[in-house]
Amino acid sequence: MQDALLALTRYWTERGCVVVQPYNTEVGAGTLNPATVLRVLGPEPWRVSYVEPSVRPDDARYGENPNRLQTHTQFQVILKPDPGNPQELYLGSLAALGIDVRAHDVRFVEDNWASPALGAWGLGWEVWLDGLEITQFTYFQQAGGMSLDPVSVEITYGIERIMMALQGVSHFKDIAYAPGISYGEAFGQAEYEMSRYYLDDADVEANKRLFEEYASEARRMLDARLPVPAHNYVLKCSHAFNVLDARGAISTTERARAFARMRGLAREVSQLWAARREEQGHPLGLVEALPAAPKPTSFADVDGARTLLFEIGAEELPPHEVTRTTQAVREAVAAKLAATRLAVGEVAAHGTPRRVVVVVPDVQPREPDAERTARGPRVSAAFDADGNPTKAAQGFARGQGVDVSELGRVVENGVEHVALTRTVAGRGAVEVLSGVLGEVVTELRAEKNMKWSDPKLSFTRPVRWLLALLGDTPVPVVASALASGTTTRVHRTADQPVVEVSSADGYREFLAGHGVVLSADERRAEIVRRAQELAASVGGSVDLDGVLDEVTNLVEQPTPILGSFNADYLELPAQILTTVMRKHQRYLPVRAAGGEGAAGSLLPHFVAVANGEVDEDLVRAGNEAVLRARYEDAAFFWRADLRTPLETMKGGLDKLTFADKLGSMSDRSARIAALAERLAEVVGAGDETLRRAGELAKFDLGSQMVIELSSLAGTMAREYAVRAGETPEVAQALYEMELPRSAGDAMPASTAGALLSLGDRFDLLAGLFATGANPTGSSDPFGLRRAALGAVSVLRHFPELRAITLSAALELAAAGLPEGVALSAEALEGAREFAVRRYEQQLLDAGHDHRHVNAVLVLADAPAVADETLAELTALVGDEAFTALVAALQRVRRIVPAGTSGGYDPSALREPAELALHEALGSVKPDGEGLAAFVAAATPLTGPVNRFFDDVLVMAEEPELRAARLGLLATIRDLAAPVLAWQELPS
Amino acid sequence: MQDALLALTRYWTERGCVVVQPYNTEVGAGTLNPATVLRVLGPEPWRVSYVEPSVRPDDARYGENPNRLQTHTQFQVILKPDPGNPQELYLGSLAALGIDVRAHDVRFVEDNWASPALGAWGLGWEVWLDGLEITQFTYFQQAGGMSLDPVSVEITYGIERIMMALQGVSHFKDIAYAPGISYGEAFGQAEYEMSRYYLDDADVEANKRLFEEYASEARRMLDARLPVPAHNYVLKCSHAFNVLDARGAISTTERARAFARMRGLAREVSQLWAARREEQGHPLGLVEALPAAPKPTSFADVDGARTLLFEIGAEELPPHEVTRTTQAVREAVAAKLAATRLAVGEVAAHGTPRRVVVVVPDVQPREPDAERTARGPRVSAAFDADGNPTKAAQGFARGQGVDVSELGRVVENGVEHVALTRTVAGRGAVEVLSGVLGEVVTELRAEKNMKWSDPKLSFTRPVRWLLALLGDTPVPVVASALASGTTTRVHRTADQPVVEVSSADGYREFLAGHGVVLSADERRAEIVRRAQELAASVGGSVDLDGVLDEVTNLVEQPTPILGSFNADYLELPAQILTTVMRKHQRYLPVRAAGGEGAAGSLLPHFVAVANGEVDEDLVRAGNEAVLRARYEDAAFFWRADLRTPLETMKGGLDKLTFADKLGSMSDRSARIAALAERLAEVVGAGDETLRRAGELAKFDLGSQMVIELSSLAGTMAREYAVRAGETPEVAQALYEMELPRSAGDAMPASTAGALLSLGDRFDLLAGLFATGANPTGSSDPFGLRRAALGAVSVLRHFPELRAITLSAALELAAAGLPEGVALSAEALEGAREFAVRRYEQQLLDAGHDHRHVNAVLVLADAPAVADETLAELTALVGDEAFTALVAALQRVRRIVPAGTSGGYDPSALREPAELALHEALGSVKPDGEGLAAFVAAATPLTGPVNRFFDDVLVMAEEPELRAARLGLLATIRDLAAPVLAWQELPS
Repeated sequence: MQDALLALTRYWTERGCVVVQPYNTEVGAGTLNPATVLRVLGPEPWRVSYVEPSVRPDDARYGENPNRLQTHTQFQVILKPDPGNPQELYLGSLAALGIDVRAHDVRFVEDNWASPALGAWGLGWEVWLDGLEITQFTYFQQAGGMSLDPVSVEITYGIERIMMALQGVSHFKDIAYAPGISYGEAFGQAEYEMSRYYLDDADVEANKRLFEEYASEARRMLDARLPVPAHNYVLKCSHAFNVLDARGAISTTERARAFARMRGLAREVSQLWAARREEQGHPLGLVEALPAAPKPTSFADVDGARTLLFEIGAEELPPHEVTRTTQAVREAVAAKLAATRLAVGEVAAHGTPRRVVVVVPDVQPREPDAERTARGPRVSAAFDADGNPTKAAQGFARGQGVDVSELGRVVENGVEHVALTRTVAGRGAVEVLSGVLGEVVTELRAEKNMKWSDPKLSFTRPVRWLLALLGDTPVPVVASALASGTTTRVHRTADQPVVEVSSADGYREFLAGHGVVLSADERRAEIVRRAQELAASVGGSVDLDGVLDEVTNLVEQPTPILGSFNADYLELPAQILTTVMRKHQRYLPVRAAGGEGAAGSLLPHFVAVANGEVDEDLVRAGNEAVLRARYEDAAFFWRADLRTPLETMKGGLDKLTFADKLGSMSDRSARIAALAERLAEVVGAGDETLRRAGELAKFDLGSQMVIELSSLAGTMAREYAVRAGETPEVAQALYEMELPRSAGDAMPASTAGALLSLGDRFDLLAGLFATGANPTGSSDPFGLRRAALGAVSVLRHFPELRAITLSAALELAAAGLPEGVALSAEALEGAREFAVRRYEQQLLDAGHDHRHVNAVLVLADAPAVADETLAELTALVGDEAFTALVAALQRVRRIVPAGTSGGYDPSALREPAELALHEALGSVKPDGEGLAAFVAAATPLTGPVNRFFDDVLVMAEEPELRAARLGLLATIRDLAAPVLAWQELPS
Repeated sequence: MQDALLALTRYWTERGCVVVQPYNTEVGAGTLNPATVLRVLGPEPWRVSYVEPSVRPDDARYGENPNRLQTHTQFQVILKPDPGNPQELYLGSLAALGIDVRAHDVRFVEDNWASPALGAWGLGWEVWLDGLEITQFTYFQQAGGMSLDPVSVEITYGIERIMMALQGVSHFKDIAYAPGISYGEAFGQAEYEMSRYYLDDADVEANKRLFEEYASEARRMLDARLPVPAHNYVLKCSHAFNVLDARGAISTTERARAFARMRGLAREVSQLWAARREEQGHPLGLVEALPAAPKPTSFADVDGARTLLFEIGAEELPPHEVTRTTQAVREAVAAKLAATRLAVGEVAAHGTPRRVVVVVPDVQPREPDAERTARGPRVSAAFDADGNPTKAAQGFARGQGVDVSELGRVVENGVEHVALTRTVAGRGAVEVLSGVLGEVVTELRAEKNMKWSDPKLSFTRPVRWLLALLGDTPVPVVASALASGTTTRVHRTADQPVVEVSSADGYREFLAGHGVVLSADERRAEIVRRAQELAASVGGSVDLDGVLDEVTNLVEQPTPILGSFNADYLELPAQILTTVMRKHQRYLPVRAAGGEGAAGSLLPHFVAVANGEVDEDLVRAGNEAVLRARYEDAAFFWRADLRTPLETMKGGLDKLTFADKLGSMSDRSARIAALAERLAEVVGAGDETLRRAGELAKFDLGSQMVIELSSLAGTMAREYAVRAGETPEVAQALYEMELPRSAGDAMPASTAGALLSLGDRFDLLAGLFATGANPTGSSDPFGLRRAALGAVSVLRHFPELRAITLSAALELAAAGLPEGVALSAEALEGAREFAVRRYEQQLLDAGHDHRHVNAVLVLADAPAVADETLAELTALVGDEAFTALVAALQRVRRIVPAGTSGGYDPSALREPAELALHEALGSVKPDGEGLAAFVAAATPLTGPVNRFFDDVLVMAEEPELRAARLGLLATIRDLAAPVLAWQELPS
């Protein structure tokens, strides 16, 4: 291992990197070393490489976990500015480590990086070596809240992982660290003891005090304008925080507060550093921006229709951007060409991770000529009485550069003007395309965009080359610093990674000849075909769910490889196995196909899709090792958890701080159970399942599996509960109480599950609004938005629970809060309103008319009721009788002054129209609740109301009469009001 | 520079070193990295190398000082066990750095290392490259209070210095750190800002709290038996302490307390680490001890007298040990040979830094044969009445292995015994020498001894080879693992560093032929001769004071080289220049010889003495650069100080904490001035000089020069005072107040100087005894022993100040202590007694008879008085009259019971003898004070006293008479008592 570090150091030194030492206070990552986080700021160039033992107390495992260490070794490289070929340089470094990049499957898999604590983010990739993440590769866009210009390339190697892969060992302790000394021998004791400190023995109060001391020294140093010591103390702060976090001593509130504080300090450090460098006149000089490529000044002619080939070459695009960009580029080219006079065939486009290719057949050699007329003054003003041209006409002619005699006439809007008509020659196709394609590149945008070395371009990943040919004629395309050529790039590991392209025709075949499958459909089909063959070879069938599209756009030449894992792992719940395969590894699971085993059950195989021609045995072995390590972890937790009684896991919740004043997670779990019971009383739905599930609520947060893989909360509760002998209903309720986990997720199916889910969410809302921790701006550390959305969704999904209104649920939740925490009426209304807003957004997102939404929102305290009303309303829209009823009710509403009560003395009425209305009103008896019933009953009112307004003067002079008439109308108003906010409807 | 670090890493990696990373919390030296300080403990092997940015807040200089950095780069190597040739490996690493070790003057100059804070020490060297210290090379003997077995070799390179020398730059900022980036560009800002933090801006209270937090976490981790995190917190503790120290916020009391605490923790960490490693079964295995060399079993014969050559080859011995060991070995060989029967010529011995050579001429080929007689029982018991041998005789014969008939007879003390006389053959010379020389090596000892790889030997430095020849016959000598051979080692840079020696004769010439001058006298003479020539070549004369003997034993082949420095530096006081030359560089200064300049004044030249044949221009340039850097530092301080008004420097004393409860150094200075004035009143000696000097007392502690070179305190005060326009007397008094700085140092010459010196010392004694900080055991952090010795010395040197007794001075000092600090009567007596003990020791060390010393100690409150009395006593010793007087006075003293008062009623007396004594007593009128005057006056009492005792019964029965007689004697006793403790004299 030490040789590998030396080899990397040497490699990068030879490429102009300064070597610095690891930082001499604990850092969580090489990024935090000032040689990165400060040096990436500002306009000075910087190239550096260094080793950084990165301390992550949270990853402490007493040295037992094969892959997880409290201190792991990063090798960090910063290239500022982006040298234009950082991926190629990186691959060279792998070769320097002795990795044969042709035999292995090395891939750049989208992985964006953000550190809110640092106010930093960047776009880039995880680099995979046969499925193993060995490097984080990032174009650093922002740090300390400051946009970076120039952008830096950050390459962070995970050395232990690389070593384990290279040496073929399955536990970090077995890495040969130096001749005769293993990693475990060199660092095992420290790993164990520091784990003890971080996980068990660190003094919580002492570390809290240290955090404060460090933060205040950082503050003082900022005030003294000394960014270096200030940064030093921010790092110490961060480490103290990490220690506390690993000890489980940080509540979510404290976490949010600490992050805000550290982020604020980090931002100030960055700004101060940048300012200080500027004051010093940027001692390392300034990065020179790449010059814009020279604009083309002459364009070749072609003598007939030709095919256009245009390729935008980029570094690995995120898979979904391959699809999106391909379509966007096709549309842009088509639209822009349509705006010219150049005749072309239909625009087609294809994409791979590294290129978007546009092919346009039948491009005509030139635009046709066209006439362009310039309009001058009116004829009446252009010639005087003698028919001589006036000054106006002369001026116009001079402006056009012609003699007055050359002017003709046009009629516009019936008025005759002098005019000059010229023939504009059509441009050659090359010139037209040059302009159009240049614009397309310049205007490229993705969902998330980044900067690189180019001074102007911005896209999801750097654009590195352009290829443009019209037939065999090069089309000069320029976009910022980039100019097109006649070469393309194929696999980086090819003998000739850059190849000349002689003609636009047959490009797909040309690329295929170099091992690049241009069409996504072809790649997808190839993956499916080959994966099915491989699965069939082991008697299975490949499960294509989930990752097929992603995988299709992760490779240019799909090479599906069948791998296997030890069948013993099948004892784990399938969801764990497939989650790891799909989410972490982008593998296709293999399921039993009929004969062998239960059809559909998992087989101990998977299909990995490598890129290009690789040494399949090597790549298989690598991927199998990665999966084995991941499964080994999972199995370790699984077995450990199965040995643990549920009550013991639940006991672990005592140690998990939840939030300020709201106690531990254990307290919260008890509150959820109690609230679910109270909600059950509201709807008369309590039972033994609910009681027992409540008792166990959230126990799996104390399981090792969920501590590791928090996305399995609920899933593991179900698994462990069943195995511990709980009833299937209780197990299911424990699972469902976590639903929905996100927008669009499944809903609880059982009432017990729904009640617990509501209990969970309303407790969260009540507790945090009571303690003033409601979300502000974009900050929502507790996920209150998600909680409110979830609660509303469950209520909508369970109309039978309609008695549980938002108000009622929040009041019950408030009653269960710990002593000393009170939800004021104002805060309760805030929480209710917050939930209503989420509901409103759901309706709008579903495409409902905003007026209809507004009309039913008055009912949103019971979202299921509002839903039904909305459905009825939608059905009634366009119905004439309904429209008339609405209009009538609006008339009523408008004329009755606010404050007028319903009720009236019928004996005071005397006009026929008003008596008729009184009578009609008397017979309005809705058959049930809801809008439809009301409308059915109230429609007979429409005529009488309208006649009333036609015949009767409401504002009669006699007070009794006026009161009775207004009372009559107010009674109608009040009858309609609870059904809908009629005033929101168009009348 | 980064290439140099890589080159070293590669070099040591190839020699089996593990590479680890710098430690991720601040450390003051690479030694503190657990890869050194913990791994050197216990029996496991370990070889490691690493870079360590070492943080020394005290060395912060804002990046301005060319050689001093708050963070400097160490490269650290640990070889455990000692590989047997670590110096050779080290020289190889210099070659790997591109240093031509043949052209340069590379030397190993004694420098022992101890860190009381770590409970660690070792013996070794500074390695000099052309006079520049580039490496600390240590045989680590103890760490954390534990003796190390095996011993580790620690090599610590000072990378910045090496780089400055290699690159020929004079400021660290100018080091080329990486291509295109200088050290200053890479680290300059951090250097400045961290300096600001350490020197100006660190929050003192916050760092004190951090110290406490760290110490208590360390304590807790020790209790949890986790040495790694405990060590981590000890390091943090130490750094917090260093920060406080750099901020000047640590008083001497606090320092002692903090050190004790850190030392205690470090010891516990070490013991715990060792214990934990043992519990784990020493995972890295055990170091195998070197096996003892096989004992020789056969010895060659020689056929005539031969010369013995015996060489003990060692790594560079400390210069004074060369002389001491040469003599010790000569004596040991001579003594041991004398104890054999082998006839030899006179034993001669010579030494160089790397060898002690014994030459013995005329060694005879064998010991002569000898007879040895074994004595049996008396003849009377050996034979029965019949003349037959008894059982006793038979037993004896059987024991001797002979028949009874073979027994003879011997007479011993007049008694005849049976006996057996045998002839013992003399051993061959080779056999005799083998034994003798082996013992000599095994018994070698120095003042300070160390262990290395040898399991049994112990000496000041490792013994690496033995050469023993008798004529041309090898003598097999074995000492522990070491066995003699027939080779010696010459310069390490020679083509053949190991050469065969064929014969004992002509060895001196043989070595000379290899460039090694065996005789110290020859080397010394050569240095003097050549240095004088060189000095003469620039019109000067070499100043041989001080370092000649040391230099003679620092080289095997002296190569004096004349260097020069910029004459501008001569503006600096000569004492600064010569201190730097001699103490730091071991150069011989060159002074003007008559003609040019003032005779005896310094010339801008020096003579450095290199070892062996070097590239003189290169070595000269290197040495000149070192001296330039040192002088540049000094000149920088000098000029800065000269621009600073004395009052401003004095103001700096406010910031220097002195000691707990005793305020700042400024407070102390004021107390000294006031005390000196009060002492002056006692002797009527106050004047304007004293007043003004008191006002300025110790101002130079605030000068940059003294902050850098504390040994120049006082010296700089005089220099700066004169230049600031103070009178020469004031300047001189300021200088003298620091005298004497050590035992044997110069004394103040002026009264003002003496009074200030006394004020300084008595204030220190009174203050620290008052606050309970008096020395205990060997711990004397405030140097109270030196202070007491100094005070006594000054009082002895100024008899005219005899009115200032110890008691009076301490009382006056006590009166000046700050409010709240009181010197109790008991503490005052403790301080007085402490000073008296120092005086007693001075007298004993000077060789005075302890009885005389005891006799005058009663007068020691005024040491000058005691001195005079002692002188008089010494003069009187042997004088018969005096002896008689003493005896008489003793008689008097013995008979008078304790508690008897002097004074009597003369009229009660009646016997002639007592009346005569009364009369004689009446005429005792000493002519002045002191013993001599008293003796002269009292001698006439001798006769009357003796007659009194002969004639008179003291214990008369009549009470009046008895009272009168006892009163008479008590009066005599009381008359004599103040003069001397008569009872201490032999009577």
